[in-house]
Amino acid sequence: MPVQRAEQLARLLKAVADPTRLRLLSLVAGTDDGEACICDLTAPVELSQPTVSHHMKILVEAGLLAREQRGKWAYYRTVPGALRQLADALVQPLSSDQ
Amino acid sequence: MPVQRAEQLARLLKAVADPTRLRLLSLVAGTDDGEACICDLTAPVELSQPTVSHHMKILVEAGLLAREQRGKWAYYRTVPGALRQLADALVQPLSSDQ
Repeated sequence: MPVQRAEQLARLLKAVADPTRLRLLSLVAGTDDGEACICDLTAPVELSQPTVSHHMKILVEAGLLAREQRGKWAYYRTVPGALRQLADALVQPLSSDQ
Repeated sequence: MPVQRAEQLARLLKAVADPTRLRLLSLVAGTDDGEACICDLTAPVELSQPTVSHHMKILVEAGLLAREQRGKWAYYRTVPGALRQLADALVQPLSSDQ
């Protein structure tokens, strides 16, 4: 695996290698309409809104969530296929020569 | 996703969320006989043997590599299915209610 690819993959994996972010991803993915308001995410993870916003920003920057501001609140959706793509990249070493 | 499961999954993801460890995994998986001597792993990643040993220990503890001491050297193999299992767990949030 080339250094640059390893660095990029490690950055994405770091975004999900956090228990709170895994739970937030799961909460967004598990909503009925596939979208969650930041206002509904703080209670389940028992964290303040700034802390949840910080975690959500990392997930958005990793390309795993999409964010939309509507009035006072931010709404989040999962990016279709993004987590699957990351999972596939993770098992790539098994089928790689280097 | 329950807190405990999120914490366990985050621990395993942290083990692979490192560029050097991704390259080491890839190197072990890419050998002809599926096994690599620690003595052959230091040059490709340009790191000292203690540093490589440290990274390998984290991968062994995460259950991704198996280690066998033979005389002076340690030999490593990938644990069949372990990386695939981790990748599958990563996409679980998409199909989970919580």
